[in-house]
Amino acid sequence: MHGGAEFVTEIRPSPSAEIVQRVDELAAISEAPDNLTRVFLSKELRAAADLLMAWMREAGMSARMDAIGNVCGRYEGTVPGLPCLMLGSHYDTVRDAGKWDGPLGIVAAIACVGDLHRRGVRLPFAVEIVAFADEEGTRFASTLLGSRAVAGTFVDSALASRDKDGVSMRDAMVGFGLDPARVRSAARKGSDVLAYLELHIEQGPVLEAEALPVGVVTAIAGATRLAVELRGMAGHAGTVPMALRRDALAGAAECIVAVETLCRADQGGLVGTIGVIHAAPGAGNVIPGLTSFTLDIRAPTDDHRISAVAEIRRTVEAIAVRRGLALQIDVTHENRTAPCASWLQDQIGGAIAAEGHRVFTLPSGAGHDGMAMIDIADIAMLFVRCRGGISHHPAEHVDEADVDASARVLLRVIEHFKPKE
Amino acid sequence: MHGGAEFVTEIRPSPSAEIVQRVDELAAISEAPDNLTRVFLSKELRAAADLLMAWMREAGMSARMDAIGNVCGRYEGTVPGLPCLMLGSHYDTVRDAGKWDGPLGIVAAIACVGDLHRRGVRLPFAVEIVAFADEEGTRFASTLLGSRAVAGTFVDSALASRDKDGVSMRDAMVGFGLDPARVRSAARKGSDVLAYLELHIEQGPVLEAEALPVGVVTAIAGATRLAVELRGMAGHAGTVPMALRRDALAGAAECIVAVETLCRADQGGLVGTIGVIHAAPGAGNVIPGLTSFTLDIRAPTDDHRISAVAEIRRTVEAIAVRRGLALQIDVTHENRTAPCASWLQDQIGGAIAAEGHRVFTLPSGAGHDGMAMIDIADIAMLFVRCRGGISHHPAEHVDEADVDASARVLLRVIEHFKPKE
Repeated sequence: MHGGAEFVTEIRPSPSAEIVQRVDELAAISEAPDNLTRVFLSKELRAAADLLMAWMREAGMSARMDAIGNVCGRYEGTVPGLPCLMLGSHYDTVRDAGKWDGPLGIVAAIACVGDLHRRGVRLPFAVEIVAFADEEGTRFASTLLGSRAVAGTFVDSALASRDKDGVSMRDAMVGFGLDPARVRSAARKGSDVLAYLELHIEQGPVLEAEALPVGVVTAIAGATRLAVELRGMAGHAGTVPMALRRDALAGAAECIVAVETLCRADQGGLVGTIGVIHAAPGAGNVIPGLTSFTLDIRAPTDDHRISAVAEIRRTVEAIAVRRGLALQIDVTHENRTAPCASWLQDQIGGAIAAEGHRVFTLPSGAGHDGMAMIDIADIAMLFVRCRGGISHHPAEHVDEADVDASARVLLRVIEHFKPKE
Repeated sequence: MHGGAEFVTEIRPSPSAEIVQRVDELAAISEAPDNLTRVFLSKELRAAADLLMAWMREAGMSARMDAIGNVCGRYEGTVPGLPCLMLGSHYDTVRDAGKWDGPLGIVAAIACVGDLHRRGVRLPFAVEIVAFADEEGTRFASTLLGSRAVAGTFVDSALASRDKDGVSMRDAMVGFGLDPARVRSAARKGSDVLAYLELHIEQGPVLEAEALPVGVVTAIAGATRLAVELRGMAGHAGTVPMALRRDALAGAAECIVAVETLCRADQGGLVGTIGVIHAAPGAGNVIPGLTSFTLDIRAPTDDHRISAVAEIRRTVEAIAVRRGLALQIDVTHENRTAPCASWLQDQIGGAIAAEGHRVFTLPSGAGHDGMAMIDIADIAMLFVRCRGGISHHPAEHVDEADVDASARVLLRVIEHFKPKE
C-alpha cells in the first residue's frame, strides 16, 4: 500500500520547479501593484482560493471553501471517511510580504498529494490540506482566525472588529460570500484529525547557520509582550549635573542592556526584544523625562518564559527604584507555548535522516497556525531554510534545492505516517 | 563717590517687589493668549521694548533701540562718555516660556541703576544695560542675534533665514522699523566696555541643592552635539537567537549607558545627554535594524569637552565594532567655552560674601549672551536659584527672597566695581 517516497519526476517538471512556479503564481495575486499584500476576505484572497482549489482538484482531492474562508482539500485513504493527517499553512500575507511565508507549505503539500495521486497510492488514513485564510492578522486586530475557526475556538466578538477603512469583519465576510452566523460550522472534531503537520520557512537564520535545508520544530514558543514606561524628570541638557538627573532614557537603556544580557546568558532559547522606544520630550538639548518601550519575551516552554518575565520585571523594577524613576509595566499580549508532539517529531526526524540530512531540532519563535490547531490535534512543523533569516520582506527567499529537499521530506513523512497508538 | 550698597527702601516698595512686578508685566506681553511667547522682531517684542525704555528713563538712564532691536540704556558716570560696565540679559523668550529667563537680569539691573539714581550716586564709569532682542533663537534658526550684533559678529547671511511662516529676517526687520543694512551699526567697541555682567536664573538644580540664593559662574560651557546612527540587521523578534542578532537598539542602549557612566565618573562638570532616539522599523515584534540618537556633550573647558568627545567616540566605536554594527557619527553643532574672567568672579564673590552668603561657583551648562559678548569684553555671570531647576517651562519660578538677594549682590558689584588694571 505504501509506495516509495520518491516523486515521479520522469514525465513532468520536478516537484520543486512546480512548487516554485505556484508560489510565484500566488505572489502575483496582490492588492498592491508593486508588492505582495493579500489580506483576509479580500478579492485577492478569493482569487488565490480559486487557484488553490483548482490545484487541489488536479491533485486528486476534493476541494471546498469552509465557513471562514479556509480552502480545504481532501484526499481519501484506502476507504472513504477515514480520519486524516492534516497538512496546512496560510494563504494570507502581511503587507509588502515575501512570497514563501505560508504558500510554500500549501503548495508543497499539494505537490505531495499530487504525487500520491499520480502513483495511485492510497494510505490507511485520509490526507487533508487546509489553506488558512488568516494567520497574519494583517487586516483585523486578531491573528490565527482561520485555524481558530477549524479548532472551534473562533470568538464571535472578533466579527465586530474593523479594518483600517472601518469595514467590520462581519460585513467583509458577507461581501466575500460567507455567512458570519455559520463560522462555527468550520470547526472540526479532534477525532477526525490524527495530527496537524505544517511545512513553513524558518523566518530565522538558524538553519542557514547550521547549513541545513530543513529542521524539526520542537515547539511554537509562547510570547509575553509588555509595555514599559519609565518616568523621571525632564531637564536642560546643559544645566543639570549628572548626579542630580532622573533621566528616563538612560534608565530605559540600562533596562535594554539588562534584558539582552539576561537572554544572552540563557541556554534554553529565551529571546527578548525591545522593538519600539519613545523618549519625550524628544529634543537634543533636553534630558528625557519620559521613556516608553515594548518588550517581547519568548521561550520554548511556558515555565521558562514565565520565570524569565518575572526575572526581567524584578530587574527593571530594581533599575527604576535605584534611579528614582516611576515605573509602569503592562502586559499587552500573552500566549502559551504550543509544544510539537514528540511522536511526530520522531517521524519527521526519521524522514529527514532517510533523505540524508542531519536531524536538527529548533523552536519556532514565530507564531503559526499550530498554536490554534493544538486544541484539537497533536501538532508538528517542518522548517525550511530561508536566506539570511529574512521574512516579512520582499527579500524573503528559499533556494529551489531546499524546496525540493523539504518537499521530499514531507512526502516521506506522509507516506510513512503512523498515527499515535 | 561710592555709596553704600543698600537699596533705599524706605520711601518705595522693596526692589524685589518691583522687580517681580515688572517681570510679571513683561510676561503679560505675549503672542499667545494662554502662555508666554515673545519672539524676535514681533510686535510683542516692540511693546516690551517700549516698557523697558520707559523703566530705564525712570531710572535716570538715556534709552534707545539699536539697529538689531536691542534696548540700550546708559547711566553716565562722574563725567559723560566714560567706558561702561555693561549689564544685560535678553527679552525674547522660547515658546511657552517661563517668565524669569532673561527679563529678571534686565529688570534687576534697571532696579540697581534706579537706586543709584535716586541716591544721586555717580560712579567713575558709566553703567549700561542692554536688553538683547534675540538670545533664544526661537523665531529663526540662529541664536544670540542681539549680542552678536553688539559684539560685531552678526553674520549678514542670517538675514536671509526664514521663520516658520516663511518670513525672512530681513523683511521682519523692516516690518519692525529697522534697517537691515544698518545692523553693523549696533556693534560696540571693546574699549567702550569695561566688562559684561549678566544676572540670570540658573536653569538648573545646583543652587537649590546647595541651599544658596546665588552663585558665581565660572564659564559658559561649550557644547558638542553629535548625531549617531547604528545600523545592524532587522529581524523577527521570535526567530533570531540572541547570538545571531545585530540589534541596533541594544547597541544604542549600551552606548547610552556608557556615556552616562563616563560622565558620572567625571569630576569636572562633564555632562552628556541623549535627548532623541529613534529605532526602526519600530514594531514590537521586530528587532531594530537601525537606531539613531543625538548626543549633547558639555564641559566647563574646551580641552575637557574635546577629550571627552574623543573618549565617547572611541567607546561608541568599540561597541559598534564588537556588535557588528555600522556606525556613523556626525558633528551637528559645536561651540567653544566662554570662560568668565577671574577678576570679575572675584568681585562677584566678594559682593556675595559681603551680603552674608557662602560663595559658591558653578559652570553654566546653558548658553547665554556672554558667549557672544566675550569677543569684545571680559564677561561674568551671577546665577540666581530657581525652583527645581525648571526652566523653559511655565513652572519656572524664583522666590522673591532670592530676587532680593541677587539684586542686592548685583548692586554691590556695581557700586564696588573696579575695572581690570
